[in-house]
Amino acid sequence: MTDPSALADRVRDGELRLHELEAHADHETAAAARRELLEAETGADLSTVGEYAFDAEAAEPNIENMIGGAQVPMGVVGPVPVDGEAADEEHYLPLATSEGALLASVNRGCSAIREAGGATARVLKNGMTRAPVFSVADVGEAATVAAWTRENVDRLAEAAESTTSHGELTDVTPYVVGDSVFLRFVYDTKDAMGMNMATIATQEACDLVEDETPASLVALSGNLCTDKKPAAINAVEGRGRTVAADVLIPHDQVEAKLKTTADAIAEANTRKNLVGSAKAGSLGFNAHAANVVAAAFLALGQDIAQVVEGSNAITTVEAREEGLYASVTIASLEVGTVGGGTKLPTQAEALDVVGVRGGGDPSGSNADALAEVIATGALAGELSLLGALASSHLSSAHEELGR
Amino acid sequence: MTDPSALADRVRDGELRLHELEAHADHETAAAARRELLEAETGADLSTVGEYAFDAEAAEPNIENMIGGAQVPMGVVGPVPVDGEAADEEHYLPLATSEGALLASVNRGCSAIREAGGATARVLKNGMTRAPVFSVADVGEAATVAAWTRENVDRLAEAAESTTSHGELTDVTPYVVGDSVFLRFVYDTKDAMGMNMATIATQEACDLVEDETPASLVALSGNLCTDKKPAAINAVEGRGRTVAADVLIPHDQVEAKLKTTADAIAEANTRKNLVGSAKAGSLGFNAHAANVVAAAFLALGQDIAQVVEGSNAITTVEAREEGLYASVTIASLEVGTVGGGTKLPTQAEALDVVGVRGGGDPSGSNADALAEVIATGALAGELSLLGALASSHLSSAHEELGR
Amino acid sequence: MTDPSALADRVRDGELRLHELEAHADHETAAAARRELLEAETGADLSTVGEYAFDAEAAEPNIENMIGGAQVPMGVVGPVPVDGEAADEEHYLPLATSEGALLASVNRGCSAIREAGGATARVLKNGMTRAPVFSVADVGEAATVAAWTRENVDRLAEAAESTTSHGELTDVTPYVVGDSVFLRFVYDTKDAMGMNMATIATQEACDLVEDETPASLVALSGNLCTDKKPAAINAVEGRGRTVAADVLIPHDQVEAKLKTTADAIAEANTRKNLVGSAKAGSLGFNAHAANVVAAAFLALGQDIAQVVEGSNAITTVEAREEGLYASVTIASLEVGTVGGGTKLPTQAEALDVVGVRGGGDPSGSNADALAEVIATGALAGELSLLGALASSHLSSAHEELGR
Amino acid sequence: MTDPSALADRVRDGELRLHELEAHADHETAAAARRELLEAETGADLSTVGEYAFDAEAAEPNIENMIGGAQVPMGVVGPVPVDGEAADEEHYLPLATSEGALLASVNRGCSAIREAGGATARVLKNGMTRAPVFSVADVGEAATVAAWTRENVDRLAEAAESTTSHGELTDVTPYVVGDSVFLRFVYDTKDAMGMNMATIATQEACDLVEDETPASLVALSGNLCTDKKPAAINAVEGRGRTVAADVLIPHDQVEAKLKTTADAIAEANTRKNLVGSAKAGSLGFNAHAANVVAAAFLALGQDIAQVVEGSNAITTVEAREEGLYASVTIASLEVGTVGGGTKLPTQAEALDVVGVRGGGDPSGSNADALAEVIATGALAGELSLLGALASSHLSSAHEELGR
Repeated sequence: MTDPSALADRVRDGELRLHELEAHADHETAAAARRELLEAETGADLSTVGEYAFDAEAAEPNIENMIGGAQVPMGVVGPVPVDGEAADEEHYLPLATSEGALLASVNRGCSAIREAGGATARVLKNGMTRAPVFSVADVGEAATVAAWTRENVDRLAEAAESTTSHGELTDVTPYVVGDSVFLRFVYDTKDAMGMNMATIATQEACDLVEDETPASLVALSGNLCTDKKPAAINAVEGRGRTVAADVLIPHDQVEAKLKTTADAIAEANTRKNLVGSAKAGSLGFNAHAANVVAAAFLALGQDIAQVVEGSNAITTVEAREEGLYASVTIASLEVGTVGGGTKLPTQAEALDVVGVRGGGDPSGSNADALAEVIATGALAGELSLLGALASSHLSSAHEELGR
Repeated sequence: MTDPSALADRVRDGELRLHELEAHADHETAAAARRELLEAETGADLSTVGEYAFDAEAAEPNIENMIGGAQVPMGVVGPVPVDGEAADEEHYLPLATSEGALLASVNRGCSAIREAGGATARVLKNGMTRAPVFSVADVGEAATVAAWTRENVDRLAEAAESTTSHGELTDVTPYVVGDSVFLRFVYDTKDAMGMNMATIATQEACDLVEDETPASLVALSGNLCTDKKPAAINAVEGRGRTVAADVLIPHDQVEAKLKTTADAIAEANTRKNLVGSAKAGSLGFNAHAANVVAAAFLALGQDIAQVVEGSNAITTVEAREEGLYASVTIASLEVGTVGGGTKLPTQAEALDVVGVRGGGDPSGSNADALAEVIATGALAGELSLLGALASSHLSSAHEELGR
Repeated sequence: MTDPSALADRVRDGELRLHELEAHADHETAAAARRELLEAETGADLSTVGEYAFDAEAAEPNIENMIGGAQVPMGVVGPVPVDGEAADEEHYLPLATSEGALLASVNRGCSAIREAGGATARVLKNGMTRAPVFSVADVGEAATVAAWTRENVDRLAEAAESTTSHGELTDVTPYVVGDSVFLRFVYDTKDAMGMNMATIATQEACDLVEDETPASLVALSGNLCTDKKPAAINAVEGRGRTVAADVLIPHDQVEAKLKTTADAIAEANTRKNLVGSAKAGSLGFNAHAANVVAAAFLALGQDIAQVVEGSNAITTVEAREEGLYASVTIASLEVGTVGGGTKLPTQAEALDVVGVRGGGDPSGSNADALAEVIATGALAGELSLLGALASSHLSSAHEELGR
Repeated sequence: MTDPSALADRVRDGELRLHELEAHADHETAAAARRELLEAETGADLSTVGEYAFDAEAAEPNIENMIGGAQVPMGVVGPVPVDGEAADEEHYLPLATSEGALLASVNRGCSAIREAGGATARVLKNGMTRAPVFSVADVGEAATVAAWTRENVDRLAEAAESTTSHGELTDVTPYVVGDSVFLRFVYDTKDAMGMNMATIATQEACDLVEDETPASLVALSGNLCTDKKPAAINAVEGRGRTVAADVLIPHDQVEAKLKTTADAIAEANTRKNLVGSAKAGSLGFNAHAANVVAAAFLALGQDIAQVVEGSNAITTVEAREEGLYASVTIASLEVGTVGGGTKLPTQAEALDVVGVRGGGDPSGSNADALAEVIATGALAGELSLLGALASSHLSSAHEELGR
């Protein structure tokens, strides 16, 4: 059996390339050899990177050129009662982050929600998308391809679904710009986040389009999906789960828990999250929803590059007669409880803490529940931060009056 | 000394609250107690979460309610030569992700860049921002406060800089919407990402504004910063580092390494990244820059919620006579080599691999170099994915011709 | 019969209010009286304003507090052959503007298109929208209302269509943000631009929503329509007509007519209309489509405030082997050939010049044809301006080489 | 002297082209000849188009291929007291439109403002922009050009201002995307809207850039200006005048004039103008500001294609203890009182009604005043429409309670 140093030597000798090591040794050894090489070349000490707690071979679907693991502190907030369609009890939410004070803040919000009897949450829309772009001769041909698409959704569904036992094609919308035709395919991918499923299914559907129309596929993703870029199409039409959570907190609890008033929080929300974001030309009308989405995604094995779309959230606050009403609606939260990073050990354990590891019953319900819990976490984060801003505003106002 | 089970019992008995354990035991024990409690309540097994390789007490500035660590596989791409203002040699780039094929793809791009002689990279702008929102009586008062601000940048700088030994206030711009005044403070925070520094300094400057004008602070962040939300103001004006990287690859290398032509890649880029993103109402005109930004941020101790702003990137491609020209310009890449998550052991080791751990000489140069290397990594990712799309398009076109 | 001066005196005496004059005199006299009053109060001479060529009484549906007419020079461009679905021959296009050089420029583009054999044009989508906003108790109720809406499109159509003999409800899409539910109603309003028709029909449908669900109507327009505001939802999903026009111009004609090359025009388009607009955070990826839309709207009796949505256009240019390919796709062009300002005499005459006055056969075909002709005009404007930019760039480049 | 029919015959014979007639006859005759030709070719009757009240020859700077005039009904609203920096008394505002009920609605809002003691208005920023795009070799060169620009603002100002006796260059900001460099020049163009002045001055400055740096001008407008396209850069940074108007209306007057309450109007504004526009991905957070901007622009000789930028407005409403506070802030209102269409007779007369024809004293004050008056008109329009929505909501709510 090869030892890391011998393997590293063969790379140095030009006999092997850095990415080929797994063909010549077990995965642990390959990673160790890479660390040795990097340490020699860069002077870095990679001992902690090498102390990972997952199985290197099992991680093969997740990484290439592996050298070890990145470790980020994980904490927990909650429990918080979530009255959702899929989630329906108290949930703890694990969060991994290096941003100090984040968990304390979100936990304070959870506590306020819990005392108010819990949050209501709903998945309002569900659809993973892939939008290939085709070239055509001119706008006449583009119109023809668009019309063909609208009339052949059934055939496209048949083709797409031939590649998957779980996914369902729920919609295809054509968009035309000059001699480019974009077809936005929407899938119900159940408990999977679904990008891979959607991509493979769409490739099959594209073959049909190319066979039956003059369109020629240029790129399997034409950026109208939109994956990992901030885009209005996601903020408007959603991607993954569109999910909302809200809560009504009696006035006395607002004062006791958040040290401020519903009016002050509503003012902060309007000036900052609505008017400020409007002036900024933003697609995110919230205080820091991405903080909770990012920390939950990291802890729970989601794709952290999709925090981009997860930040498309709108926070609303009203001072009602009965108390403070607050809501967070996330337009495009892409989550799954099977596949991707959900099998990594620390992430799988964290999914168990939420109670949503693996496929749900019915299919899709675990991912729905996860979306509802994360939305509730985001709501907690908004409440806590807005409360802190409003409370500091109030105290400063009092101070001024006192002068 | 307390053992975890005893500590857990005290929480169960209502004697202690979950977030108070560090006051009654060392950090390891507190985390173990929380795991024990969560395991009991949720049925989860948290053994791997407990196998973290960092020091729990040292992680205190990064997390509350800690239960352990999240672990994500880390790999490496490169080396890739970067001809930057701060970066000036070959660099390896560690990336942590659970998205299979990502590193292989980025590495292919790095290889193409390396063979072409390397990338050029430049930090074009540098400024961390914080934009508080104030309320005033009416637009007359708003105009007065805006005018006062323009005339008192020196005094605001003095106040702001009194709180920091490193940061410099480089600009303050007032924006008015009705009876709300937003002041966007811009700082040079050197090698720190700088959000905390900017927040503390801005608080001090806000006190001056409140003392000298009729404006009343509503929120220390008024969302014109804009932090962790997709916003045009960042895409236009930048936040953190505005950084670009580009490369010119001779035509024969495009064919050899990317299995396609410059024309085909240029077409894919135009239809997908420019026209497709235009139609999507996007702020991100790229293929998957966020993938590289996210994986680098996770590996290198950056704030992963700021992947949101890091996705504000524009990719351009031209088929020049000499070869394929490609560039990636990231408008708002928020990076630092000191503070935040950079002290966590696996992240610190990864920063050493890039060669940019800690403060640079001159101050700020390490963060500049990190930005240049990440931009180069994003460029590699764009080249590789666009190349794959174009190559598949080409082969499919050939296939059709062959029929 | 009252003379203007006597009427003006009664206003001065406080006996009548400025907007009540039509109840006491014919419309000409009322307008004359208002001019007299304004002249006295402001010192302005309003004689030319009083020389209008339309019938004051017939203009009553278009204006209140009338004082006369605004006159803008009208010219004509063309003829230009349009190979559309509805338009199918040579068309002249009247344009009214005060911007010198605009018509000369557009006409140059028309001439290039004509010489190339004409433009192809297509209406790709057709739907006038109205999107009321309702309040509900919480996100649970919001989900219920959204689900009810999806299941009751037929009943909503029945209600909506009971108010109109022409319009058809083609779609209703619910969007939820917290405790606000927006329903975007889409209508085929045939040859009418259709805002009024859509508003009245939607009011009726809203009554049904309020009767059958807990939702309470807050505003008949909730800004997701979106009318007269720049909005991504229109740029993505369209409003009114989504229409495209394109042309292929042989290389020799590009040189002869536009004094430049296809490559140079393609470069100008990419750097300016694609990359420049991307960097600007724009919804308009074109050079000056709004110029043509505005001038055509004014000449042809359209609602000039809707130039806002008409500017949501993407221009693409390719240097193909056969020549220069150029296209303009306008996402949301709101046009009609009946109702609104189309009955005003100069506008009705101008519609006759295009050949699309009044209702078409089949219904909707006149508005379709108008959209196709305006898109072709916009294409002409883009070609001409891009050609001028590229030509000046080329000559300056030559100059530099000559030094 | 040539008569129209003889001239038309020469065109028919191919002896003259349609746009060359002014070289062979006076302008009236040329226009008449064109009408005759169009009537023969299209069957249209153009008699009303021929009844224009302006001097055809004097209109030469405004139009080519003239056939006559477009006439739109003009009415007036006001008077409304405007407490501005430049406007400082009661003003009437002429509006030209074909949209029935618009003037009645705006006038109702003016009346509410008048009764409340008038509006406050301020020009918050003033700068006409032009942003050429240059090509460079790579991002290294781009950084050099950007740095050169920042260091040579004085020389650029000298060059730019050599072309104009009025305009002043107030700022130049470089933006880089890959190998494209955009320089956004900002001018104080005083009482002129200033596009032409800015364009000519920028051309001169571009020559300096090309002389002194490796940059090569691709297009004098690179779409970061941004002219006549909806763009976040204008919404954020402004273009032309950034102007705001607001008013505080006592509660009893809200009830008496608007038949509703401050709370109901605030709710309608939040759900529609803030949350609705947020969800729509909009740059316009208002109800119908473009209606007033468009009608005022048409009546007052402004460029109606710039209604696009004029729609970048944010409306805010608060129910304060003292009454209803409402504001409208228009980010990019491009207005002038000299040049362009302001010399056309009906428009010049209308400018006299407002009291702002020609150059102001000090220079720029007339355009400032015009901006303040239009913003006040937009505020009136917002108040009236929001009031109507809220009032109908209230009455419907009462009705429901009554059942």
